[in-house]
Amino acid sequence: MKDTETLYQHGTLALLVPGLFDGTITTKELLNHGDTGIGTLAGLDGEVIIVDGQAFQAGADGSVNTVNGDATMPFASVHTFDNQLPKTPLAAMTMPAFTTWLQTTAGLKNAFAGIVMTGIFNRVHVRVAPKQTKPYPPLTTATAAQPEFTRENVQGTVVGYFAPALYAGATVGGFHLHFISDDHQFAGHLLDFTVMTGEVTAQVLPNLMLHLPTDNADFMKADIELSGLNDAINEAEK
Amino acid sequence: MKDTETLYQHGTLALLVPGLFDGTITTKELLNHGDTGIGTLAGLDGEVIIVDGQAFQAGADGSVNTVNGDATMPFASVHTFDNQLPKTPLAAMTMPAFTTWLQTTAGLKNAFAGIVMTGIFNRVHVRVAPKQTKPYPPLTTATAAQPEFTRENVQGTVVGYFAPALYAGATVGGFHLHFISDDHQFAGHLLDFTVMTGEVTAQVLPNLMLHLPTDNADFMKADIELSGLNDAINEAEK
Repeated sequence: MKDTETLYQHGTLALLVPGLFDGTITTKELLNHGDTGIGTLAGLDGEVIIVDGQAFQAGADGSVNTVNGDATMPFASVHTFDNQLPKTPLAAMTMPAFTTWLQTTAGLKNAFAGIVMTGIFNRVHVRVAPKQTKPYPPLTTATAAQPEFTRENVQGTVVGYFAPALYAGATVGGFHLHFISDDHQFAGHLLDFTVMTGEVTAQVLPNLMLHLPTDNADFMKADIELSGLNDAINEAEK
Repeated sequence: MKDTETLYQHGTLALLVPGLFDGTITTKELLNHGDTGIGTLAGLDGEVIIVDGQAFQAGADGSVNTVNGDATMPFASVHTFDNQLPKTPLAAMTMPAFTTWLQTTAGLKNAFAGIVMTGIFNRVHVRVAPKQTKPYPPLTTATAAQPEFTRENVQGTVVGYFAPALYAGATVGGFHLHFISDDHQFAGHLLDFTVMTGEVTAQVLPNLMLHLPTDNADFMKADIELSGLNDAINEAEK
């Protein structure tokens, strides 16, 4: 039986802050732990969206590409989507209204949850992290200028997570959502949307399985400065 | 094959802060995830030490008791001890010197580690959280007055964890160590020691499996105030 109660996370947001962008898990290995999720490729190369066990990458040039099983990631989160759960219909609303509504409706507060929302959108606004080369700069430098893309009248899927504020740093506190269109032509890290109609599943995940890249020497000895950490993450992820 | 790479943690330190002392995992279930570890019983009833797959409780009256499989805990951490790992001999030293030395020697910084140290101690100083009754007070109130015990010339085992500061709140940042004497007559949360001779295993644990009590309604709706959280934890755990 599939484990639909565990959020599997490889790496942390915190390790990205000083620029630890080495890929430390293969996509193939990651997909052993879930069929739905988000991440970024080695070198902070774009935005990864995983739906139905297939990984896609939004590149900084606006392209959407399938991700090879050998491609590696410094950070990713996946879970196994529970298709037995009810899908809650959505009214037309903006992204801030959606997250506020969902948090209340699903009682999201102290536990992790996987979010999958499908819909027809009036407008979707995303950004995509641009690929970095070694020596890697800090996250705020790497993400200072990020291409943004907007698409109108698009059908697609929002995938991501809710995490309690307690885990900010280890991951993104609050919502962290990516998007991919049904035609796989448009994807990225969600900045904003207006949805016309849709439905959402908020899957409470009692377990966080956090896997750290302890075989990566740079990670083991890195100075991860906690002061200002969440400011840096929020600046990069906004 | 036993999984010797995972720190299994039930609950968080943070949930103890507002007084969520309900037992939410049985000892029997906990021991499915490891044979070595620490915790506290429902109601913040003393200090739990798990060695060789057996759980002991230090009570606030200074007694040490075996823990029944049905007894429940609000917070506990376990791992499976890897007896293939080398045991590093120890010079005579105090507890602060030990933690400083161990952190450097074992390269403890960004990853979790299970600590098991056996030795002959000149002196061991512990405290034991006193059992609370409902309605439970906040952690700082519950632990404002904690019985302390000292034993000289004692042989025993130190069990606990190193966690990176990033996870303070979810758990105790830095070292969190309990003690039990070989004769099972003296145990508690370690405040200080002077060891004469001994040996230690620091087992780096790449995985944190964090299990939250999502079936506990009080937990799901509790207000866990992040501001001052670590001050409260450090005050209670000192």
